[in-house]
Amino acid sequence: MTAERFAALWSSLSPIGRAGGDGGYLRHSWTDADLVCREWFVEEALDRDLEVEIDRNGNLWAWWGEPEGAGAVVTGSHLDSVPHGGGYDGPLGVVSGLLAVDRLRERGVTPTRPLAVVVFTEEEGARFGVPCLGSRLMTGAFDPAKAVRLRDRDGVLLADAMGRAGLDPDRLGPDPERLNRMAAFVELHIEQGRALDHIDAPVGVASAIWPHGRYRFDFAGQGNHAGTTRMSDRHDPMLTLAHTVLAADEVARLHGAHATVGRVDVAPNATNAIAAHASAWLDARAADESTLERLVETIHQRAEERARLDGTRVAMAAESLTGEVEFAGNVSRLAAKELGAPVLPTGAGHDAGVLAGHVDTAMLFVRNPTGVSHAPQESASAADCAVGVERLTDLLARLCQ
Amino acid sequence: MTAERFAALWSSLSPIGRAGGDGGYLRHSWTDADLVCREWFVEEALDRDLEVEIDRNGNLWAWWGEPEGAGAVVTGSHLDSVPHGGGYDGPLGVVSGLLAVDRLRERGVTPTRPLAVVVFTEEEGARFGVPCLGSRLMTGAFDPAKAVRLRDRDGVLLADAMGRAGLDPDRLGPDPERLNRMAAFVELHIEQGRALDHIDAPVGVASAIWPHGRYRFDFAGQGNHAGTTRMSDRHDPMLTLAHTVLAADEVARLHGAHATVGRVDVAPNATNAIAAHASAWLDARAADESTLERLVETIHQRAEERARLDGTRVAMAAESLTGEVEFAGNVSRLAAKELGAPVLPTGAGHDAGVLAGHVDTAMLFVRNPTGVSHAPQESASAADCAVGVERLTDLLARLCQ
Repeated sequence: MTAERFAALWSSLSPIGRAGGDGGYLRHSWTDADLVCREWFVEEALDRDLEVEIDRNGNLWAWWGEPEGAGAVVTGSHLDSVPHGGGYDGPLGVVSGLLAVDRLRERGVTPTRPLAVVVFTEEEGARFGVPCLGSRLMTGAFDPAKAVRLRDRDGVLLADAMGRAGLDPDRLGPDPERLNRMAAFVELHIEQGRALDHIDAPVGVASAIWPHGRYRFDFAGQGNHAGTTRMSDRHDPMLTLAHTVLAADEVARLHGAHATVGRVDVAPNATNAIAAHASAWLDARAADESTLERLVETIHQRAEERARLDGTRVAMAAESLTGEVEFAGNVSRLAAKELGAPVLPTGAGHDAGVLAGHVDTAMLFVRNPTGVSHAPQESASAADCAVGVERLTDLLARLCQ
Repeated sequence: MTAERFAALWSSLSPIGRAGGDGGYLRHSWTDADLVCREWFVEEALDRDLEVEIDRNGNLWAWWGEPEGAGAVVTGSHLDSVPHGGGYDGPLGVVSGLLAVDRLRERGVTPTRPLAVVVFTEEEGARFGVPCLGSRLMTGAFDPAKAVRLRDRDGVLLADAMGRAGLDPDRLGPDPERLNRMAAFVELHIEQGRALDHIDAPVGVASAIWPHGRYRFDFAGQGNHAGTTRMSDRHDPMLTLAHTVLAADEVARLHGAHATVGRVDVAPNATNAIAAHASAWLDARAADESTLERLVETIHQRAEERARLDGTRVAMAAESLTGEVEFAGNVSRLAAKELGAPVLPTGAGHDAGVLAGHVDTAMLFVRNPTGVSHAPQESASAADCAVGVERLTDLLARLCQ
């Protein structure tokens, strides 16, 4: 696969849903941009004589071979984006899957099992709030009765958005027959960090997805007049919040983990008022669950210590906790062994992480020189992407024969 | 004046515009609650045979003697509140003014000059964003062409809100004749801090209003994925913001000044995203302008230093700067000398501060045991308020004869 050939297919998708300037992509699921992306996929699949189907959860499948056959080998990713995200997160895996079909044929590979390229829906959770919704519904990890009641920020129901796209929301739900027919799943994804860049490798293999928790900190103080209240009479929750933000960063570095406060809420949030309340959301990830626990406990302690000095109160509550996913099956071992690629963990959730509990699963990463993710500066060179296609082809060739 | 007698008049006003529970007051200017407060004032004034007028800027005046006469002695404050503010900030000065008229009459004082109780409009700036709007319009410190275009958070124009209350917004603007007829202004106000409580004094006299600046800090970083971005690859503006919040607090304590970050804005403000941008608004006040300048410069330096470590960028802009107001005229000197009350500065703006550049002005403070201001916990005892009425009466008796 040449870089030029990769770029040719890439350029047919890349204009869709692009925001103005360097504003990245707006490809929220079931919006017009997403529907055009899905049409693009169907056309490319039909051009390759693949058989296209939409499953009960809105995921798209393009089959080489018998869709109802057993032992299927599946690759793919998603086409939806976060608001103003980059163009590679998701689409790179879909484009690479289509090109891998081309390369398998050129290499004269005749699969002895069905092979599919899949597009999962609402992987980002950016419109309806539940990441990996398409794969979670398929595996039974998310209740379809809850799914139909999900609303976007404008109040549009998921059921209505899918209904307008011609789907029947009453059919949402687990799809065990489909899962049982899958023997292997491989998701190729742009790396969301600079680990491959640091070791100068174009492609890597995922070892695991770090455990991940989201925690809400509520800081309560005494609202007061910013101009008149003596510094020594204050109970300012913004100070406790600020200390906790810095503590999270410092403690994460000490633990070799990731901790981020990217969301805050302050009341009354007025320039001339000492805040009465403030909240901060901590996103914490670590290589294993005991490290994650220690990390969060230490941050919580640091918040409590500062709260005593500030005369404020702090309460912490876990909003979600996702355990570690290990890619430890045959497919992942094969990938690590055959591709000669470095093995590395990731901090991000993926459809591959959802499927890993049900199907023998592997993930491949393609180098991202900026390391930026979920923002327009995300990037990959066409040359690296072409290498990614070749490595994906290598792996699929081993799996489908 | 007995505490019971103060409490009797107070209790006729205190139910108006009270939020449920301990939610304080919702008396934004020109809302229904404010209009009922104004009606209450008009009735109380008429019950005292005072002549009521509304000036071109919507300020209410209740006259004992000839409104058009020269050398008038005026006392009063405001009735509007911040959202969920306390009940004393403003109304205490109005109620005390009405009761002082009663006490002057009981003492047999016959004013040789006109005496008025005034209610200034939109002192808090809580609805239309410009504090002391009524007094600033009267003194020419705020452009009436800008005033009519001010909108509240729901988009309602000040012009329309005043129009619905029966006022002609085309008449807004400077009122030099009225100002020239004023010989003295005395504003009694609840203390917005605990200085009087610390020295166990029920009443104090203001020496000055501290200079006051509002500054916007914009922190720019690199939006990124919270799960995957290595700590060492981050450019997180939330860290620079947090450091600046703590630096402001620390530097203010070192300078004997006040610095507060009570308002922030973060984008995209998502739990799993390292922020791309964050803003913080600094409210800074100090005893003199050079200290204020040093304070802000030091905080700015600290922000810049941390930004270099974080790989972020910081920009600071002054949004407003109000110079020091000294209450140094005859009226203020008389108050300090005659009332035997402690003299103290304040960090808060007031209509008295606006008028001080035009009229010989003094401020009296009444003890606030909690020290809380702009929140429901603000408080004053009826006994202290009654002492405040007596001291105000003493001062007005000296001024109006």
